[in-house]
Parts: sequence; structure tokens; C-alpha cells
Amino acid sequence: MSLTEDPTFAAFTSQESNVRSYSRSWPVVFDRALGSYLYDTDGRAYLDFFAGAGVLNYGHNHPVLKKVLVDYISSDRILHSLDMFTEARRDFLQTFNDLILEPRDLDYRVVFPGPGGANAVEAALKLARKITGRESVVNFTNAFHGMTLGALSVTGNSLKRGGAGIPLVHATPMPYDDYFDRDYPDFFYFERLLTDTGSGLNKPAAVIVETVQGEGGVNTARAEWLRGLSELCKKHDILLILDDVQMGCGRTGGFFSFEEAGIVPDMVCISKSISGVGLPMALTLVRPEHDVWEPGEHNGTFRGNAPAFVTAAEAFRTFWSDDELEKATIRKGAYVESRLNQIAAKHPDAGLVAKGRGLARGLQYADGETAGRVASGSFDRGLLVETSGPEDEVLKLLPPLTVTEEELDKGLAIIEAATDEALAA
Amino acid sequence: MSLTEDPTFAAFTSQESNVRSYSRSWPVVFDRALGSYLYDTDGRAYLDFFAGAGVLNYGHNHPVLKKVLVDYISSDRILHSLDMFTEARRDFLQTFNDLILEPRDLDYRVVFPGPGGANAVEAALKLARKITGRESVVNFTNAFHGMTLGALSVTGNSLKRGGAGIPLVHATPMPYDDYFDRDYPDFFYFERLLTDTGSGLNKPAAVIVETVQGEGGVNTARAEWLRGLSELCKKHDILLILDDVQMGCGRTGGFFSFEEAGIVPDMVCISKSISGVGLPMALTLVRPEHDVWEPGEHNGTFRGNAPAFVTAAEAFRTFWSDDELEKATIRKGAYVESRLNQIAAKHPDAGLVAKGRGLARGLQYADGETAGRVASGSFDRGLLVETSGPEDEVLKLLPPLTVTEEELDKGLAIIEAATDEALAA
Amino acid sequence: MSLTEDPTFAAFTSQESNVRSYSRSWPVVFDRALGSYLYDTDGRAYLDFFAGAGVLNYGHNHPVLKKVLVDYISSDRILHSLDMFTEARRDFLQTFNDLILEPRDLDYRVVFPGPGGANAVEAALKLARKITGRESVVNFTNAFHGMTLGALSVTGNSLKRGGAGIPLVHATPMPYDDYFDRDYPDFFYFERLLTDTGSGLNKPAAVIVETVQGEGGVNTARAEWLRGLSELCKKHDILLILDDVQMGCGRTGGFFSFEEAGIVPDMVCISKSISGVGLPMALTLVRPEHDVWEPGEHNGTFRGNAPAFVTAAEAFRTFWSDDELEKATIRKGAYVESRLNQIAAKHPDAGLVAKGRGLARGLQYADGETAGRVASGSFDRGLLVETSGPEDEVLKLLPPLTVTEEELDKGLAIIEAATDEALAA
Amino acid sequence: MSLTEDPTFAAFTSQESNVRSYSRSWPVVFDRALGSYLYDTDGRAYLDFFAGAGVLNYGHNHPVLKKVLVDYISSDRILHSLDMFTEARRDFLQTFNDLILEPRDLDYRVVFPGPGGANAVEAALKLARKITGRESVVNFTNAFHGMTLGALSVTGNSLKRGGAGIPLVHATPMPYDDYFDRDYPDFFYFERLLTDTGSGLNKPAAVIVETVQGEGGVNTARAEWLRGLSELCKKHDILLILDDVQMGCGRTGGFFSFEEAGIVPDMVCISKSISGVGLPMALTLVRPEHDVWEPGEHNGTFRGNAPAFVTAAEAFRTFWSDDELEKATIRKGAYVESRLNQIAAKHPDAGLVAKGRGLARGLQYADGETAGRVASGSFDRGLLVETSGPEDEVLKLLPPLTVTEEELDKGLAIIEAATDEALAA
Repeated sequence: MSLTEDPTFAAFTSQESNVRSYSRSWPVVFDRALGSYLYDTDGRAYLDFFAGAGVLNYGHNHPVLKKVLVDYISSDRILHSLDMFTEARRDFLQTFNDLILEPRDLDYRVVFPGPGGANAVEAALKLARKITGRESVVNFTNAFHGMTLGALSVTGNSLKRGGAGIPLVHATPMPYDDYFDRDYPDFFYFERLLTDTGSGLNKPAAVIVETVQGEGGVNTARAEWLRGLSELCKKHDILLILDDVQMGCGRTGGFFSFEEAGIVPDMVCISKSISGVGLPMALTLVRPEHDVWEPGEHNGTFRGNAPAFVTAAEAFRTFWSDDELEKATIRKGAYVESRLNQIAAKHPDAGLVAKGRGLARGLQYADGETAGRVASGSFDRGLLVETSGPEDEVLKLLPPLTVTEEELDKGLAIIEAATDEALAA
Repeated sequence: MSLTEDPTFAAFTSQESNVRSYSRSWPVVFDRALGSYLYDTDGRAYLDFFAGAGVLNYGHNHPVLKKVLVDYISSDRILHSLDMFTEARRDFLQTFNDLILEPRDLDYRVVFPGPGGANAVEAALKLARKITGRESVVNFTNAFHGMTLGALSVTGNSLKRGGAGIPLVHATPMPYDDYFDRDYPDFFYFERLLTDTGSGLNKPAAVIVETVQGEGGVNTARAEWLRGLSELCKKHDILLILDDVQMGCGRTGGFFSFEEAGIVPDMVCISKSISGVGLPMALTLVRPEHDVWEPGEHNGTFRGNAPAFVTAAEAFRTFWSDDELEKATIRKGAYVESRLNQIAAKHPDAGLVAKGRGLARGLQYADGETAGRVASGSFDRGLLVETSGPEDEVLKLLPPLTVTEEELDKGLAIIEAATDEALAA
Repeated sequence: MSLTEDPTFAAFTSQESNVRSYSRSWPVVFDRALGSYLYDTDGRAYLDFFAGAGVLNYGHNHPVLKKVLVDYISSDRILHSLDMFTEARRDFLQTFNDLILEPRDLDYRVVFPGPGGANAVEAALKLARKITGRESVVNFTNAFHGMTLGALSVTGNSLKRGGAGIPLVHATPMPYDDYFDRDYPDFFYFERLLTDTGSGLNKPAAVIVETVQGEGGVNTARAEWLRGLSELCKKHDILLILDDVQMGCGRTGGFFSFEEAGIVPDMVCISKSISGVGLPMALTLVRPEHDVWEPGEHNGTFRGNAPAFVTAAEAFRTFWSDDELEKATIRKGAYVESRLNQIAAKHPDAGLVAKGRGLARGLQYADGETAGRVASGSFDRGLLVETSGPEDEVLKLLPPLTVTEEELDKGLAIIEAATDEALAA
Repeated sequence: MSLTEDPTFAAFTSQESNVRSYSRSWPVVFDRALGSYLYDTDGRAYLDFFAGAGVLNYGHNHPVLKKVLVDYISSDRILHSLDMFTEARRDFLQTFNDLILEPRDLDYRVVFPGPGGANAVEAALKLARKITGRESVVNFTNAFHGMTLGALSVTGNSLKRGGAGIPLVHATPMPYDDYFDRDYPDFFYFERLLTDTGSGLNKPAAVIVETVQGEGGVNTARAEWLRGLSELCKKHDILLILDDVQMGCGRTGGFFSFEEAGIVPDMVCISKSISGVGLPMALTLVRPEHDVWEPGEHNGTFRGNAPAFVTAAEAFRTFWSDDELEKATIRKGAYVESRLNQIAAKHPDAGLVAKGRGLARGLQYADGETAGRVASGSFDRGLLVETSGPEDEVLKLLPPLTVTEEELDKGLAIIEAATDEALAA
């Protein structure tokens, strides 16, 4: 019986747009979730190495966060407030400053740009253009920054770009760190274009970059590459926008994924795991001297999602009062890396490559078909894991940071088995 | 003591961007809310004729919705799921179909475009361009459709447009219904441009319109104007996108604000009050024959905000199982209109004009300064009400639809007093 | 025998692009030309009411101009010099100043923008954007300003716009003077958009306008409309670019077609008849205070077409030392108008309308097919006359200004006969 | 006495725009010209290694071409005819086919795009976009293609790009052949972007390239690089536009500069020397299968510059009936190269580099200031030679192809002396 004929799925297949995608890989109806597990309507458990595409760094329904959320709602406190002053917003701002910014010696003003990561990117691009009076932006090959028009123009994926229906302009792609297997000096082309007044490159207002390209195939930028980029931007008076939507909030270890490189971007985009429980929320952080907006020049309805402020502040207190989570993430990440390398070594002719940093990990297969078979085989064995990369050739592992070692082992064993099966096919 | 020096506000003034706006009009810290009232940290009550800019049509923390929300979260059900199948999504789709679409004889597929109204507009514009193969869009004077680049390009406000930092193109403004005090035939210019092959107007993919322009100054389009627009679009093979982000979900009476006109737009954008309690959620409704997207061609992280699905479905059951809310809204709206007309009549030389439809109402003053004094005087008297329009010259009343007649009377009395005071100044 | 099979036309049909157009209406090979006549290779004479689309205001091979041209070339003087100083350029500049600008109390700097009218328009648009720092331009319905990308973006014709292959942006069409049969106040819509900060019109750098739209269908703007436009531009700090490429050099009477209205545009584009004998040449005239270009910021190879400078200066001396040509043009124009009105009156049910100013005249038919039959019937009778307008529904008469009254009579009689025949069909 | 105060220059300094450029380097008034010499109004001779920026490949006022031009004009033949059939156009088309295209086994349709090189480029870009349905174009670093908006968008020079006043979009620069001193494989970056569906490069409609970048600094592309580019375009279904405006008509040896590489571009832009005597004329050559334009979809007033057709056809007969000119150009070019190498060798520490191909030659200095002193010192010694390159650091030698060996020696001796002087400073 096809999905379309099955009454279980009738509401979806007949009423939701064809654009839906994840439900095609995982054709079950999920209902409950706790920690590292999701459960479908039949009660079957699925180990979650997807974590809402990076939204659920602290796992599903973390009891501490759930409690403050339920308490907040139950006591009739404000749920929605645009950018009005609220107690929830004050506590969020104060805690963010005290536990996240100050300890890292960072001085940023907070813009609440709207509820999603694309809003954070759109706000950063707008502000960078206003500050510099320039229009053009440099992005990197295989970048992903969002689906709204401004964010899409700096995104690489051709299917998604084509969806815009208008020519996407004002952006020029430059090679990301690993684009030529590091055969060439960093920024050799970008810097040449910037210093040559006849190059034809419109001088950019900003460069937008991810430290690890999750959607692009779990490509990692080395710390020295990020430092080189930061210096290049400073030298040429170009603003550096760090899109930490997927890699921030501890995914690679530190709260911000750029901490390890020791750089201080001009703007930082944060979203996904910021609320801690999956509620829509996003931030654009800007240096005080760049905060040149007029009141209301950028606005939006859902900038005051108070339940998200409450869980976000509690998440800071729970996970970022000390460095235990950071250390655990790095330790778990190293373990995943070693296991992925073992799997790769087991199939020396298959061209498997382990990639990633912290708990953002990838296993690259020879092609998208193979990676797809591994993902599908993993689902059959009770593991949710997606693929990414231009040809979907990379199995992308984003377990909750709170995952236990047993869960990691279980998931990696499934991936190993699914890989064995896929490569034997 | 200035706001900056007051420690109560230190977290806001030192850590939040200068772009914040509502908090400038209402410099208190809100904390609790129930029904038609907000309460600040000192316990002072404020009657709310703002309702989250149209997000809180059912008032704050409606007990029925709050209960299902708390129950859902408390029982560890899924909070975030992208576009995976979930029980919450299924129930939402089924209920939306059974209680909203079917009774109105509407056949739409649902796109979950992202969490905010701008996402709904961006998705509609992308799809309209894909369907038609054209790039240009016609919008209307004083339109407001959102702050992301695609949505901003069809928005009228010059401060917000300027914020883009790049020239906004691919859109041409046409006069909205009341733009010339109805001195000229409807669409006389638009239709002339469409039929003249030498006009220089790029043939548009779509027209995007609001039935009542909330941000633009509570300008209402007559039913016959909307019908004329719908026919014009059909005749010239242009898609009609109805942005019901602020006016939908019962604000003007019917669930959709276009019902009264008897038209069926090609696409409908819904957001704001759809979740019923202020959680970020948006929909783009498209005709089945226009649902030509590839899987994943448009996507986004927060398309699966399950708590919002749960409260949205419950709101349908609570408020849209019968026509009581619709009738009450129309009745209350007529009452507000009569009271605003009385206030206007009381000051015959002040050029006051009552505007609006249903419970989207406006009182237009001679200039923005006067309207601002009325809004400020209302706040001093315990009423939250904002201004809109190109010069902020319109006091904009968006009380919860659940407002009582006593509350309406109280708020209108405040507005009358504040008007008297402002005009006496 | 079809044109393709006829060896006479083989070189054209096999070697020239399909884009050729005039040769389709007049399938003979021309070779000689004098005064108001062209002659084909068989010696047959054609009375020329086309005059190179406005290039040959002084007729073909005017003996005085021909003499200076042959003398110049024969004596080995410089033919090509980019923007180097040459004696020919000096004489042109001096004569242009002494005989054209000074007597009209006009103070303009001369830009040599390149050889054609589109270059003059491109230069004006670039400079207007540089001066104002704005990008957008307002053009008018049925405008024609050229085929290069910048000029095309302010042109109305949809076939030609479509040829760009990219969306044409940064321009908004406004209704030209006669667009609504003068049912509405001038600029009622344009001014409303400019004064409404919420209109969504990007504030334009410039307005570009023709006093008579030749390609657009010989639509004339009244002097008071032009004055109103000039005042509107001044009031809103918008530059006024007058495209006098086709209507300048005496076509409507005065040397500049805007003299009659008493306005002084900020920039003037001149080309077509400026050389007097059909050599490619163009000018962009700018007010001294607007001459803010860096040396070489705009350049081009054929800015120093010395033979054209020589004939242009001689044409000034020959035709513009007194007001005889101007008076004759107005007189002849009035005569043509009266005869066209007679023809129209003869066919009261055919909807014929006489249009135009000076010796830029049009006779509008009910549709393009009828006008095409009249043009074709005129050709059969030995008269070259083209059609224009969005549907090619206007017979467009541009005889040389030096046409005799006998030639006018002869041509008008042909048009009358061809009209009679076409309407009888 | 400054130029402004000198009455000799009054007409220029007071009446011509500040945008003039060449006259700043050569502040004398030229009047006569013959062969390789220009003469100022005082009769002083200047040896011309500039040749109208490549317009005067056959020298000034070549007697054979002058004779046919004077004869044509004197006998009242048609001077201007848009795209009507004329005997002059027929002869041009036939001769172009018989002497240029057929002997080279090339099959192109001729578009007369307007009078200048930029028109040829604009037409090619428009047609390429129409054919492919794509908008983007790839150009190369330091490319120069013209000053109109479309042509400017594929030009590299930042001063000229800035002059546009709007963001230039739809073009991406790729590294030209010698951009990294050939340290990297050809097209390593371009091909990678094309094959990576996540690269973010909009798939281009066309690539536009010069075989030698004259304005860009006399950068030459090797034959194998051009072949590689041609193959890359074919493989990825991208049109190859060869801009031969400056390097065509024999400048590098063969009539087309791409002959040596053995490639057949999809479109070729020709202008500058095509008329042979400096009259404005341009061609866009397109493959028959790409000639998909509607009649009139691209047009323009000066597409029928008959005097230019006449001299162009005569130039074909005079110079291109055999291979003598081609051989002489290559021989003379080799001689110039050897002499430039001698000059470079004489100053081993000065970083001089000889560049170029055929009689398009360059001598690169360490910086623009030095090259400017050499150009200025050459002028003082009676030689016209300009600089090019992004910093104007390359002395650019474009003598007429008809230059004698004595003239070459004389000019090269001047350059040597001026170099010695400049480097001694």
C-alpha cells in the first residue's frame, strides 16, 4: 500500500504541499520524544542523530527546561510581546550577557531579528550594507544561510537557488577552506581580486561564513583559515558575518563555534538551539559601534517569543555556568571521529572520509546514492540520521550534545551495519 | 532619571540594539497577561488594544489554549520536528481542513514556509515566480509584507525600504483602493499598463494585496474592489496573493478577511494569530494545481513548531466550530466604528476620520504628532494602542476579538479623553 | 519569386541576421539620395517622409554640408581622435556655444558620450545616479530611449524589453501626458507617490522624458505638462533628463524641442540629426554644477568622429544663424496637420486622429493592420513612411525639414490615396 | 600659463565636460594626419603608436580608402539608411563573406548592432541570454568591454564600474590566463564551480573573453588556454563570446585574433578598425543556428553607416585579399617584442616585462607612475603612446599595422630614451 493510499498519512499527502522533504525519508508519524529518542505513534523508539537539524542540542524535552517552560505558561506570564520590555526578555539579556558574552570577553549588542535563522542572516546583511554603503557580499562555496531572498542569495545549493524564481545577485562565491583539498594558498584568489582594482569584483560590504558547513557536507574550516579570513576582512575594511545558526550553542564544543579560532566576528547569527527546547528564536549580535539602525528600521512580529527567552536563559544557567558541556562535547566528538575512521578503514576501497568537528560529524561516501542507502538502512534499524552535501553524499551526524556514550555506541553500530550493507549491495 | 540611567532598564538599554521600537512608546516592563490585559512588574494593568500587532486575536493566555499547551509539553510530546510527520501536525492539518477550508469550500494545499509572516510571503513570491516564469510583482501603495528581502521589496514604507541597503527591485506599486479618495475608476492605471504593450511595465507574476492595510494606516479595500482585482488578475493570467497575516484568523469577522468579497485568491499568507497564543507559526496556502515545488526546494528549520500546531487546532475547535465569534466581531466592530465616529464628530475641525473593518479599526488624525499624543495619552491612562500609516497619523485599534463590551467602552473612553487632551494642546 | 530566392537580395537574406526590420517593409536596394528623395538601384525615386528616423532633418546629401565633408576628408585632416583635442572638435564646440546655446541662454557642458543616441542616454543615467546617489529612474509609458541595457530599462516597448534577456529593473513607468485622454490632473499619481513616504516608489534619481514620443506613436506633451514636470522635479530634487535624440535639431521648430515650453532640463540627450548628414554622433549636455565626473570615468572609442563635428558645425552656420528654418518648420508642420485633419475628416467613422508637433507628425488609425496597409500602399506609390506606436497603429511622418511644399503635397496626396484604399479594403 | 587660461584651449576647458581624458595627456590641438603621423595646428608631427586605441590599423587617411570614401560621398550616394537594403551594405556583406569569412571556413550571420563596440557587446549579451534562458555571464579579471550598462557589467576597471551608479550584477569574474603567473591549472576554479551543484555560481549564459586584454594591460591568453576555454564552454553548454573589438581586424596578425588558437567562438564582436578609416561601425557575428531574434527585437539608428561600409569593403580588398599584411604584422610584432626585451634587459632591476602579441604590445613597469613618466617623456619626444592596466602600469603600443620599420625604430628609440630618463629619475 502506497503512502497516498494509507489513511494514516491521508492528512499529509492530501493537504500538505509537495515541498515537504524529511517525511519522505522517515515515513512514520512521530509523537513523543525524550532525551535522545523520538517515538512514533506505535511507540517504536528512534535514536536521534539528527536533533532537529541542530535545534535540539540539549535533547528532547530536557526536564529542567520543560519545567521552567510549563511553569511560565501556567502562571499566565506573557507569551508574545514583539519588542516590548518584558521580564522574560530582561532575564534573557542579562543571563546571556553574564554567562555567555562576558566570560568570553565579547561585546555585542543583541538584535532580535525575527524567529528564524534566515531572519538573523537577513538582518546582518541589511545592517552590513547600511554600515558600509556597499551592496555586494562574498559567500563561500556550498554555503547555506536560509531560504528568504537575501539569505538565499548567499546560499550555494542550486536547487534551492533556482527556487527563487529571480536571478540571485549581489553575491560572489569564493572557495571554502577545503575546496581544493588545500592544494592552493588560502584566499589566493579572493585576496588577488580585492587588491586588483581591475578585477571586476564589486568590493563587498561583508563576508558571510560558517565555521563548519553543515548543509554543505560537514566541511570544516581550520582555525588558521578563519583567522586568515578575519585578518583579510579587517585589512580590506570588510565586515565579517559569522553564521553560527547550526554550529553555535555548543555544537562544536564552545558556545560559539568561532571561539577556538580566537576571532571576533563583526556580526554573529544565532538560532536553532538557542531556546534549548526547539522554540523559534534567533539573534543577530553586532558590535556596539555598528549598531547604527534607526528605531524600527528592521522589525518583525515574533521578536518577542517569551517562552523561548525563558528556556534559553535557563539553558544558559544549566549548561553554560561551567565548561563541563564543552569538554564533554569535545570528548564525545573525538570518540565519534575515531569510530567513523574505523568504519572508513574497514572499507578501504570505498572512499569513505570522516569529517567534522565537535559533535558535528560527517561520513562521506563515494556518492549520494550510497549515502542515501546508509541513511535509509539506519532508519530501518531505528536511527534517524540525514545526509547533506551538494550530492547528498555525506551522512551527517548531529546527536544531542547530551547523548550518552551508550547511545553514541548504539548509533555508530547502526551506521556501521548500514554501511556494511550498503557497500555490499 | 533617563531610561539609560535607570537600573530597571539597564539590560535593555545597554544590551539590546537601538533598533527596538515598541519599548520606546511603552517604557515599562511587562510580565503577566490575561485576556485583554497586560500587567507590568509592579502589577499595574494595561488594557490591550494592540494584541501583539494582531497576534492575540483570542486574548492573552486563553485558558482552553493554555491548557492544551501545558498538557502537550508536560507529556513529553514532540516540540520541534521540521517537516517530519507528527501527530500534532496531522491533527492541525485535519482540523484546518475540516473546520476552516471545507466549510468555506476552499481547496488549498498547506505550505509550512517558516515561522513568521515574512516567510509566508517569501514562499508565495518564490512559488508565483516559479509557476509563471516571470519576475515582477505588483504591490500596493502603503503595503506592508515583511522585513526579509523578498517581502521588503513589496513593502511601501520608505524607512524600512531604505534599511535594505540594496536597491529594491522587481516590484511596482499600484494605487490601493482608497488612494485617491475614490476619485478615479478602480484599476484605471493598472489595467491600462497591462493592456498597453508599450507601457514599460514588466508583466507581473503576481499581485500581492492586503484586504485591510494595517501597518499602512488601516486602509480598507471595498469588496467590489477586491473582486475587480481578482477578475483583473484572472483576465491577465496573473496570480493573486492575499496577505492575510494581520487581517486573517477572524480579525475582520470571517476566518479569512477575503470571504466577505467572495473571492478565492491563488495563494493566501497566514500567520500572527494562527497559533492562537502568540507562538511563531505561518502558512502559505496554494491551489493544488500550483503546488509545483520539488521536495525541499523551499525549506526551513521552524516549520514544525508542534506546540503551535496544538494550540492552533484547539483554537479552531474553540472558536471556529460555529459562527458566533464571526458575528460578535462584526457586532463589536460596528460598535467601535460608531464610537470613533462620535469622537470624530466631537471635533469637527480636526479632520478626524474613522477607518477600518471588523475589529481592525483606525482613527486618523491630521498628522502623526497628534496621533502620537493620543497614543501616549492613552498609555498614561492605562491603554496600549499603537499608531500606523505613512506618517503614523492613524491610531490603530486591534483589541482581542474576545474583548468584552465593557472593555471596549473603557478603552474607547480613554481614547476619547486622550483625543480631547491632544486636540486641546 | 521570394526574396530569399532572388539573387539581388542573396547577400542580405543569407548573410544578415534575422533581426533586420526596415528592409522587410521596403524590399528594394537603395543607392543614391538627394534632398527629399532616395533612389533605388534601378533609378526609381522614393519621396522620403522617414528621413532616417529623424537623422536627416536637412535632407540627404545637402550640398553645403557635403562640400565641407569632402573638403575635410580630401585634405587629410583627422578623421578619428577619441577625445583628443582637434581643430574640428574646437570649431564644433565653439559654434555650438555661439549659435545654439548662447542665443537660447543655456549653460551646458558638453559630454561626447559615444556615437549613438543610446550612448547619450546611458551617460545621462550614469551621471544622474552619481550626482544623486539614487538608483531608480522614472520614465513614461511608451517611451523609447535605446537598445543598450541602461537605455532599454527606461524604454516601454515589450518586444524590445523582452530582448534584454534579464529582468529590467531600476525604472518605473508613469503616465505620459496624453495617456488618459487628459481625463485626470497632470502628475496626480506621480506626485502622490513622491509625497507619500509609504508609497513604495524608490525615490528616483531622474525623470527621463521625450517632448514628443516618436517611436511611441507621435504622442505630444503639452508645454504646460512639461513645465509641470520640470517644477515637480525641482520640488522633489529629481534631475530632469530631456531625451531630444529624435525631436531635437529643429524637428519640432526650435533647435531644442523643449524651447517652446520654456523649461531648462538638467540634462539633454542629442543625436540623430546633430551631424546634419547622417554620421553617427551624440551629445549629452549637462549643467556645469552637475559635471562631477572623474576624467575617464565614462569613455568610448567613437567620441571623436571629426567628420561629424565638421558637418555639424557647418549645419549650425547654415541653418541656425537665424530663425528661418524654425519658422518654416512650424509653418510646414501646421500645413501637414491641416491636411492630416482633412484626411481624418474624410473618413469620419474610421477613428483617424492627427497627432504631432512641428514636422513630427502622425496619423493614427484604428489598428496596426490598417496603418500597415497605408504604409505599404504609400511605398507602392513611391513614398517612404513608417509606422510607430505600441501596436504600430500610427503612420509617422518625419519629412526632412528642408522638404518643399510641393514635396509635402505630393507625399500627403499619396498618404490620402493609400488611406482611401486601405479603408476601402 | 595653465591650460584653462590659454585661449587656444578655451573652447575645450570651458565647454567640454570634465570627463575628457586623452586630451589631458596630450595638451595640443591636432588637425591633420597621414599614415603613422598626426600633426598639430602648429604643424608639429607626432608619430602615432596609439592609432585611435586600435581604430586605425591601416594608418590615418589611407589613400585608397580615402579615395573611395570621397568618391562615394561626392556622387550623392546614400550616407545613412538604418537597416534598409543599400548597395553599400550589399557590397560590404558580400566582400566580408568572400574575403574574410569563407577563406577562414567561418559561418556567421552578421548583426549590425549599432555604431560602437559596446553595441556589439550589448547585442551579444542580449542574444546569449535569449538563446539560453539564463541571465548570468562570466567575464575575466581586467576585462574591458565597454561603457554602456550591459557592457560595463562585464568590465573590470573599478573607476569605470563605479561610474554606473547602480550595483553591477549578473556577472562573475574568473581569473584570466596569466592571472596567477600560471601557477595554477587553467580553469581549475571555474570548472570546479561549474561542476559543483552547491557552488553558488549561477550557471552562465555565456563567457565573454578577449584574446589579448588591451585596456587591461596587454595581457595575452595562450592559444591552449583559449582552446581550453572553448572546450569548457562546449562541455557545459555555455556560449563563448569573443570580443575582438580591439584585437580584431589584423591587430595580432590574422583578421580575427582567435584564428591562431583554432577556435570558433559562438559570437564575435568587431568594431574599431572595421571601417578602416575611423568611422563608427560595429558587427556582432552569430552562428546561423543562434540567429533567433525577432525582426526589430534589437535595433538602432546608426546600423546603416554607409560610408563605413564602403571603406570597410575596400579595406578588405586592399589588405585581406592575400596574407601579406598578416605576415608583416607578425614579423613587425616579433621585432617590437625583441626591442622591448632589450629595453627591459637594459634595466634588470626595474622589473620591466615585455608583453603582447602581433602588433599589440606592452611594456610593463613597476608602477603606474613610472609608466606615466615614460608616456609623458615619449610625448615630449614626439610619440603618442598610452598606458593601460589596472594601475596604468603598462605602456601600450598599438602602432598602425602599416607602420614602416623606420617608424617602428624611431618610436622604439623614443620609448627607450623615455624609459632611461624615467628610471633615472
